[in-house]
Amino acid sequence: MDAWGMIAASAAEAPPDLEGSADGRRVIILGAGLAGMTAAYELAKLGYETPIIEARDFAGGRCQTARRGFVQTEVTGRTQRALFDEGQHFNHGPWRIPYHHRSTLHYTREFDVPLEIMVNDNPNAWAYREEEDGNPFSGERVRIRELRADIGGYTAELLAKAVDQSRLDDELTEEDRERLIDYLVSFGQLDRSALEYRGTGGRGYEEDPGAGLNPGVPSDPHAFRDVLSHGAINSFRAIDSHTQKNTMFQPVGGMDQLARGFERAVGHMIDYGQEVVEIRQNDDGVRIVVEDRGTGETREVEGDYCLCTIPLSVLNQIPSDLSPEFSQAMNQVTYASTGKIGLQFGRRFWELDDHIYGGHTITNLQGIGNITYPSYGWQEQKGVLQGYYNFGSDAIEVSAMTSAERTRFALEAGSKIHGEAYEREFETAFSVAWHLIPYSLGGWASWSSDARQNAYPILNEPDGRILLAGEHLSYMTGWMSGAIESAWIQMEKIHQHAQATATRVQEAA
Amino acid sequence: MDAWGMIAASAAEAPPDLEGSADGRRVIILGAGLAGMTAAYELAKLGYETPIIEARDFAGGRCQTARRGFVQTEVTGRTQRALFDEGQHFNHGPWRIPYHHRSTLHYTREFDVPLEIMVNDNPNAWAYREEEDGNPFSGERVRIRELRADIGGYTAELLAKAVDQSRLDDELTEEDRERLIDYLVSFGQLDRSALEYRGTGGRGYEEDPGAGLNPGVPSDPHAFRDVLSHGAINSFRAIDSHTQKNTMFQPVGGMDQLARGFERAVGHMIDYGQEVVEIRQNDDGVRIVVEDRGTGETREVEGDYCLCTIPLSVLNQIPSDLSPEFSQAMNQVTYASTGKIGLQFGRRFWELDDHIYGGHTITNLQGIGNITYPSYGWQEQKGVLQGYYNFGSDAIEVSAMTSAERTRFALEAGSKIHGEAYEREFETAFSVAWHLIPYSLGGWASWSSDARQNAYPILNEPDGRILLAGEHLSYMTGWMSGAIESAWIQMEKIHQHAQATATRVQEAA
Repeated sequence: MDAWGMIAASAAEAPPDLEGSADGRRVIILGAGLAGMTAAYELAKLGYETPIIEARDFAGGRCQTARRGFVQTEVTGRTQRALFDEGQHFNHGPWRIPYHHRSTLHYTREFDVPLEIMVNDNPNAWAYREEEDGNPFSGERVRIRELRADIGGYTAELLAKAVDQSRLDDELTEEDRERLIDYLVSFGQLDRSALEYRGTGGRGYEEDPGAGLNPGVPSDPHAFRDVLSHGAINSFRAIDSHTQKNTMFQPVGGMDQLARGFERAVGHMIDYGQEVVEIRQNDDGVRIVVEDRGTGETREVEGDYCLCTIPLSVLNQIPSDLSPEFSQAMNQVTYASTGKIGLQFGRRFWELDDHIYGGHTITNLQGIGNITYPSYGWQEQKGVLQGYYNFGSDAIEVSAMTSAERTRFALEAGSKIHGEAYEREFETAFSVAWHLIPYSLGGWASWSSDARQNAYPILNEPDGRILLAGEHLSYMTGWMSGAIESAWIQMEKIHQHAQATATRVQEAA
Repeated sequence: MDAWGMIAASAAEAPPDLEGSADGRRVIILGAGLAGMTAAYELAKLGYETPIIEARDFAGGRCQTARRGFVQTEVTGRTQRALFDEGQHFNHGPWRIPYHHRSTLHYTREFDVPLEIMVNDNPNAWAYREEEDGNPFSGERVRIRELRADIGGYTAELLAKAVDQSRLDDELTEEDRERLIDYLVSFGQLDRSALEYRGTGGRGYEEDPGAGLNPGVPSDPHAFRDVLSHGAINSFRAIDSHTQKNTMFQPVGGMDQLARGFERAVGHMIDYGQEVVEIRQNDDGVRIVVEDRGTGETREVEGDYCLCTIPLSVLNQIPSDLSPEFSQAMNQVTYASTGKIGLQFGRRFWELDDHIYGGHTITNLQGIGNITYPSYGWQEQKGVLQGYYNFGSDAIEVSAMTSAERTRFALEAGSKIHGEAYEREFETAFSVAWHLIPYSLGGWASWSSDARQNAYPILNEPDGRILLAGEHLSYMTGWMSGAIESAWIQMEKIHQHAQATATRVQEAA
């Protein structure tokens, strides 16, 4: 297998610029998710034949959007059909595209998928603490802006006073100290002479400044100790983490519009409803046994290479000729248990009553996590809100409920924050538990540092004529860019191998 | 004038809920800006006759959008015609609707004006410092995210260490200290044991984490002293100021879509191209002398009341029967000199090359201020960027230039940050200098605290049968909500007076 060359770190911005031709080679692609469709699209440009075997009846893999008529059956046999109104939708899979996921943005541009802003931070949303003895915010909702202003103000005050009184034996010069105090006064909105935090307009007003004789009524800050005891402050950052920073996008009309974009280009290559039951290979090629989910009949698909984008959680249950070392490596990754619920309400009470437009309410309600308001259809009548986003054991517990029970669970939690409107305006729900979804069996790959070190490099290499691709083969697990860029890297390996072996054949001839 | 009752602070959310009928009264409204159209729309519902006298050929007042064919002539006689491509536009007047401007959002909903997000904060935009001796960032562009992460991290480190070493003789309990350190570790992304800031993913990577064997290359923080010397840090806040907070909106297609919404409802009441040349009143009514800008002919319009929304900068030059006290009060307000320029580029290099989608690049370039990237048409080919937004003496200096000179000024400045693409891709420009725009003569009213105390209350009262309305009669000067809510308050006064006097007439009969 010396024909597998070394690949330099792939550019994340655009697919590799490959030369040469396919020389009649055929790459069997397993899975019409973003990784599979990316590889098919780019390899087909070079002339490769790239049939895609897809178990589902639609393309996109986990890049799905629930809208009216969308049907989902869990491995438990539990089936849900989305009953949202026409025009409403819920991204129960991926839902965010950060500005630096250039590979994803490459394809939204390539396939003319219009984008809109996904509001990923809204200081006017609520921070809610479950009822708890001794917690000053027990059972209360507080605007995030108040907490962010107050903790920022109080800590700026503490530091400014210490610097002012030279109580820090640091190495700051007098000029540095002055600049630092200037910054802290601005950052915390401190009183300039007393260096005290006394509240700020940014935390909100008791009564907003208005017209006429209404200058507004400022609000009083919470007590420092109370703010310190509010767990939500530990989610505040000087700068949002890499993946959560503005500018954040979503495709207009739902995340699946990206999948539809790919499908317009490669849909004719996809064989839907075909489950992979065996993956075979020898030195000359690959042979995939597939079962038609409709007829139950099996057939064989042959090719020169196989690019397998099936999640490892599923792949490790399929009989194959993968080497023992490779199979063992596959078993070292775990997949995230995670669930979401979309709740359609007949009236956007969060906009009309609470003045919350997008973003997340932070809760410590177990199994709920954040509640997220829709970033589409501003000021329209109805909307679909994300009622929970849970992980790990929380996700497993909630997913053990029936759909109706999950809905009830979400409504009871949300009512603690939004009151009776949450029950009154509720119309219909759609929930997902990714660990129970056939052909996914998990939200995304979770690499332990040990597995990342020992198993991950093996899985990035070809095993004979079989290569893997997908978000699991990236340091952006759970993100669409991980799937796309992984496909770019692996298809380049296939092409290089094909070129190298083609050349040798020609030389021999 | 005892029939003018006291008005309780107006609700900012919806127009006052008024009862009773107009009793055949006629309110002459001067100005078809947002204040004038708001009053006409609401008073007409009660049955008032509300002719609107408008000097311009279009409605909206300062709520304008420059798009292909838009013509603007300054008081200097300098005329510009916008040559932007079809589909491109530039909000040279108001450009932002914060989520809490409920009165504005009331009318976007009422008139079905679709909204989209205006990206008002983008940490991936640049902070640029003019070349300057001794400034470590002299002539350099730095990502805002780096500065925000670094100053947040270093200050968190300073405070965390001081708290940890009990160098603050504050009144924190041991539990408070622990919570404070937890918060600071999260906020500043400090190393937990050393309490040191060593950089964080949120500031960006040397090389982003990718797929395959690319875990990413972290970036090193700037030196604390260097960051302290970067003036841009003084624009950072624990929470954005009241008017600048997320969620921020703009109407799809341009801010003037809000004006068009009003116009659909009240356009038939507007008499365009009519300049007010005299404002007269007696105890029984008002008489407005208007001059047709086309024919130069004058005529008189009579009514029971006059609601005058003409900016005070213009109104104080119109002969009127306003009382000396009132006129004197009007002269105490100044109007903001302010300018903007929209630059159309043939290629969105800021998106494609710099990965900046909306938001502002912060500069200390005199006359430039912030450079703002468009929040519409993501990933399209062309776009209109805001090349400067200046105020005060800067605005006056720049506005003294010809249009071509202003463009050159903006391009030279922007090239310092964006390089040659800024010149190469430039196509056409449109600039505004609000202090030179007829019928506006300024961006917005600027109240000194003295004038706010002494003159402002007088102007909020009726002067005979004449009342004022507009952003100038609000504590939200420069914002559309100020104009709308001012109209709500003043129209209520008119209605109450009309009701009170109508009742008396009936009683007398």
